[in-house]
Amino acid sequence: MQNKYPIGILGATGMVGQRYIQLLENHPWFEITWLAASDRSSGKPYGEAVKWRLDTPLPDRIAKMPVSPADPAGAPKIIFSSIDAPIARELEPKFAEAGCAVLSNSSAFRMTPNVPLVIPEVNAEHLHLIEEQASRRDSGGYMVTNPNCSTIGLVMALKPLEERFGIEKIFVSTMQAVSGAGYPGVASMDILDNVVPYIGSEEEKMEAETLKLLGRLEGHSVKPLAARITAHCNRVPVVDGHTECVSIQLGKKATAEEIVAAWDAYRPLAGMDLPFAPQQPVQFATQPDRPQPRLDRNRERGMAVTVGRLRPCNLLDWKFVLLSHNTVRGAAGATILNAELLVSLGKLEPAAVAMRA
Amino acid sequence: MQNKYPIGILGATGMVGQRYIQLLENHPWFEITWLAASDRSSGKPYGEAVKWRLDTPLPDRIAKMPVSPADPAGAPKIIFSSIDAPIARELEPKFAEAGCAVLSNSSAFRMTPNVPLVIPEVNAEHLHLIEEQASRRDSGGYMVTNPNCSTIGLVMALKPLEERFGIEKIFVSTMQAVSGAGYPGVASMDILDNVVPYIGSEEEKMEAETLKLLGRLEGHSVKPLAARITAHCNRVPVVDGHTECVSIQLGKKATAEEIVAAWDAYRPLAGMDLPFAPQQPVQFATQPDRPQPRLDRNRERGMAVTVGRLRPCNLLDWKFVLLSHNTVRGAAGATILNAELLVSLGKLEPAAVAMRA
Amino acid sequence: MQNKYPIGILGATGMVGQRYIQLLENHPWFEITWLAASDRSSGKPYGEAVKWRLDTPLPDRIAKMPVSPADPAGAPKIIFSSIDAPIARELEPKFAEAGCAVLSNSSAFRMTPNVPLVIPEVNAEHLHLIEEQASRRDSGGYMVTNPNCSTIGLVMALKPLEERFGIEKIFVSTMQAVSGAGYPGVASMDILDNVVPYIGSEEEKMEAETLKLLGRLEGHSVKPLAARITAHCNRVPVVDGHTECVSIQLGKKATAEEIVAAWDAYRPLAGMDLPFAPQQPVQFATQPDRPQPRLDRNRERGMAVTVGRLRPCNLLDWKFVLLSHNTVRGAAGATILNAELLVSLGKLEPAAVAMRA
Amino acid sequence: MQNKYPIGILGATGMVGQRYIQLLENHPWFEITWLAASDRSSGKPYGEAVKWRLDTPLPDRIAKMPVSPADPAGAPKIIFSSIDAPIARELEPKFAEAGCAVLSNSSAFRMTPNVPLVIPEVNAEHLHLIEEQASRRDSGGYMVTNPNCSTIGLVMALKPLEERFGIEKIFVSTMQAVSGAGYPGVASMDILDNVVPYIGSEEEKMEAETLKLLGRLEGHSVKPLAARITAHCNRVPVVDGHTECVSIQLGKKATAEEIVAAWDAYRPLAGMDLPFAPQQPVQFATQPDRPQPRLDRNRERGMAVTVGRLRPCNLLDWKFVLLSHNTVRGAAGATILNAELLVSLGKLEPAAVAMRA
Repeated sequence: MQNKYPIGILGATGMVGQRYIQLLENHPWFEITWLAASDRSSGKPYGEAVKWRLDTPLPDRIAKMPVSPADPAGAPKIIFSSIDAPIARELEPKFAEAGCAVLSNSSAFRMTPNVPLVIPEVNAEHLHLIEEQASRRDSGGYMVTNPNCSTIGLVMALKPLEERFGIEKIFVSTMQAVSGAGYPGVASMDILDNVVPYIGSEEEKMEAETLKLLGRLEGHSVKPLAARITAHCNRVPVVDGHTECVSIQLGKKATAEEIVAAWDAYRPLAGMDLPFAPQQPVQFATQPDRPQPRLDRNRERGMAVTVGRLRPCNLLDWKFVLLSHNTVRGAAGATILNAELLVSLGKLEPAAVAMRA
Repeated sequence: MQNKYPIGILGATGMVGQRYIQLLENHPWFEITWLAASDRSSGKPYGEAVKWRLDTPLPDRIAKMPVSPADPAGAPKIIFSSIDAPIARELEPKFAEAGCAVLSNSSAFRMTPNVPLVIPEVNAEHLHLIEEQASRRDSGGYMVTNPNCSTIGLVMALKPLEERFGIEKIFVSTMQAVSGAGYPGVASMDILDNVVPYIGSEEEKMEAETLKLLGRLEGHSVKPLAARITAHCNRVPVVDGHTECVSIQLGKKATAEEIVAAWDAYRPLAGMDLPFAPQQPVQFATQPDRPQPRLDRNRERGMAVTVGRLRPCNLLDWKFVLLSHNTVRGAAGATILNAELLVSLGKLEPAAVAMRA
Repeated sequence: MQNKYPIGILGATGMVGQRYIQLLENHPWFEITWLAASDRSSGKPYGEAVKWRLDTPLPDRIAKMPVSPADPAGAPKIIFSSIDAPIARELEPKFAEAGCAVLSNSSAFRMTPNVPLVIPEVNAEHLHLIEEQASRRDSGGYMVTNPNCSTIGLVMALKPLEERFGIEKIFVSTMQAVSGAGYPGVASMDILDNVVPYIGSEEEKMEAETLKLLGRLEGHSVKPLAARITAHCNRVPVVDGHTECVSIQLGKKATAEEIVAAWDAYRPLAGMDLPFAPQQPVQFATQPDRPQPRLDRNRERGMAVTVGRLRPCNLLDWKFVLLSHNTVRGAAGATILNAELLVSLGKLEPAAVAMRA
Repeated sequence: MQNKYPIGILGATGMVGQRYIQLLENHPWFEITWLAASDRSSGKPYGEAVKWRLDTPLPDRIAKMPVSPADPAGAPKIIFSSIDAPIARELEPKFAEAGCAVLSNSSAFRMTPNVPLVIPEVNAEHLHLIEEQASRRDSGGYMVTNPNCSTIGLVMALKPLEERFGIEKIFVSTMQAVSGAGYPGVASMDILDNVVPYIGSEEEKMEAETLKLLGRLEGHSVKPLAARITAHCNRVPVVDGHTECVSIQLGKKATAEEIVAAWDAYRPLAGMDLPFAPQQPVQFATQPDRPQPRLDRNRERGMAVTVGRLRPCNLLDWKFVLLSHNTVRGAAGATILNAELLVSLGKLEPAAVAMRA
């Protein structure tokens, strides 16, 4: 136990906060030692403050842990954060300035030039940006973000193609699960027997984040990929798992076999032994009607992206469907994998030192 | 009563067959006098043969009507047909050769060169093709088809834009209701908490039918619109109402105001007094999160198409969302409106004569 | 127009408030002239204050009507109220003291001895209780309530049996629609692929209200029916329509035929020409798998209760299933029908006079 | 591997057949060596014959296994069977006569006097009935059944109460998941935004099986419990997990604390080390709104029953809610646990011998 990194959770009672707790139970490297949520919850045992919505039991140890105020004093040096953007904008820099490694699922700083937006399989080298942050020099603290839940599956499916063939145009239309909106989130009166073809700011996030993630680190910032992308985002009556219809235009011609081969061969984290890294990050399903959220969202404990239905597109080159678990791969698991990557890169040492003290 | 046109229904027990019955109850011009279904149902009273799935009661008169064999002998001269394509391929020509006007929702003959594929608001002039049919000359009978349920809403939204601005490229991604698959159709195990990103042959139908509908009658056939179109078709857990995300490239630039004005002004059937014609066929919803199937599918008794979320597209010119009721506007109501149009054009006279005899 | 009774709505933006507006559009006797909601909405046009969730368009006239403060000054003399019980407890007496007839769907005063809890088909005579209210003597104003949405269908199915055979024991287990919880109400994360076997205070309301409704007016109050009743209340993923499984023990033996005959013959409002009164309030469905919410909730525009599956019970005498539309028959329609009954009894005259002034 | 018992599956492509395969993957004692399904599937690799509907991947080894004809020749000596009753009635005795231990989830022989209907935690002693079967004497083969999916959760919750307090009356109203009807099973048009208050023969099965399970082995058969029971069975839009509302009358008075204590203490299989036995078979949830299918169905890998909402009943003594996973605890897991119990009792030896041969 004393060899694990102590982790604090900002936004512990939200849907993603709950996933952090579920996924970190029995994590070999990390251990939750601090939980913070809104002032309303502060001081209560977590088990009373939370409306636990996951299908595994809330661990007893966590249920009894008191909810702390969202203040760096008393917090451990590694913080997993999933809070609303306006609050994140204010709180996350405070923790970084206090010397914390802030690994955030919030959208507040994803597009900030010196804040890395990272998917370990895609753009680990962008992590160098933390050295551009003033807090890093002052206190050792820094901020790293992971993408929006709808972006992450898309980028993981695109990256192996971008590497081999280049990507020029991307069309994506999503069918997103309700868990992506948090809790209480989407009202049942809005989604039973219904579709809501609108999610506030989601299309803009997908479009911007995708190009930053696929971009190249140049000097002090990332030069986004020079591709064009358009997104249509929709909410559907599904609990977990975002499904996305994609059409793409490649930089050079590729056959279906070459595309599938690129996905199959894509294992950039192989050999690194990161506990949450999927063995095969992008899995091609051969059945004509897959992927499907209920059947495919839990592949590799929710950390793999499933692609399928690869076929020619009349407008661009190819079209296909992808699916990823939005609160695991697309949120809590993304933060955890970023933390594991930082450990393997030696960038969480200050935190580790703090822990052993 | 004796002044109404007698109507026969082929495929009377299916989901669309049920809608014909529901929608024709109290129709001012048409009256159902004959019902046919599979051999298994033949001879039974309709009320016993059908598993009625609609939310209005099965009319008593219809419940007691016997189900006839699917044979032109004894059938009236106007037939509304909604049966599986392989059966339609065999049966519908038989009825046409026997002198019937066969108005079909089946896909079997939609792309046949001398069979008109018609939406009254869009391409009424294609009806001239019935004069190209051998049966028309021999017996007076002919075949007219209406489009696939996912095509019809798309084409109605595109037509006013095509007229004013031209259309060059179309991208569409659908979220289709389960009623489109008939009954029993989609298994609940396949769609609860799920999306199925595949509907057999649907994408091909949408792509081909859209271009024929927007095409120009030239000589003995229709020259399809010279545009490029790609479709992604998905099934979602919604009872009725197909939602579609669309991106388009126009022939010449248009502003959002000009596009909305084109939709608003589009009333090609005004003044014709067709009972099922919506007053405003394409209705623009101004709310940021509309259209939605549960809230908008019943506009103008299910015969109007709702469009919304018009905004610029990073790849093509504009993107928007549309919705139409798939078993009303997209199937049974489409056949009925075609029949009303044929009455107004004097093309149902033979049937009318038969009736009065 | 000037001959219609002017109606004010308290709680106009809620789910039931929206139903009042939908159902009163084109009502032959009533016309909405005043809308009130929370302070947050006050002053805005209704169309901006409301999140309209119904599948017919919000009428233009209503959309433009300003939302008034919830104060009797300026309000008409007939008030339909559907607001949370704590607010109703404070506001409704104010309106009654100001001379208004307050017809309430709120639970606050349903069990108050001198406030009638009424279903027109069941216990119209309980309306005499309004004469026991101090406000009635002082200002002419009074309060009348309608039952909880899960109670009303049960009592309508039981009343004809109670009249003919007596009822001694009642077991009821409900499966209630999400619209019963208002908007936003039930979170989608709580109900997709799920059942919530708990609705706060619902079981207590059903048990108490049922016995008051079936009770006898004795002097200044109602003596509840001397029967025993137990309720299990559950929320299920259905938009509209409460389904209830019922077992009953009768006072004297009855055959299935006698029970169905009692339901069939039950038309206590026949001949009164109340616009919202269903022709047949309790309708027995003969199919083995009915009633079902999606298929039966709209019978008689949502004002009829459907019963089915009558069969012997191993514990009590009989068991059956019933269904009623919870926001129409079980809420907004219930208030409207109470108002119509009061008109026919001459108890809304003061309001009418006010209107004509 | 060679030390595991070889298992054959009858009905391998159905929903429960799929669960057998999923649950037996990596089972420490059992290994599937033979799969049979309908003639239509016979000869195909299982991966082609099945429409796999579970959210874990079909194991490769099983996907490649050929589907055998449903004939004892070539089958192993332990058969797990889940097939339609009419087919089971014919096939299962054939396998028993051929020397197989047939452990069946089918309803065909559950109520046959000399066939044990068993839940290991409840009535293991009923297994003695296999010695009453002619096939047992002739070939060593026999039949053992597990209960209907809705019965099993009920009986597990009742047994500890029956032991301590006696049970006289049982009222149960169910809300059952669609997976209980197999695949394709319930049509989506029947259950989206709907409830079906009818499941063919389900109420009769629940009533009869419950009393046999809680009965006492007397001589050559089971004397059913002398209690009265009535069931209302409903289908709701839930994928997995049957929820049941129960009222009971006990033989002697008990407090809520005593009832919860009886559930908590109920661990009849403790110490037997059966791999599928839940550590705590009946788990009391203290939250006011639990159990819920999505949140509680997977407790102890789906093998535990969750109870909650214990409160007094106005008609009988107590009411509560229970939940169990219908295709795990209520079907495939039930058969597997019966097999494990038979191993521990030495009743699967002949099969084991056969295996080693």
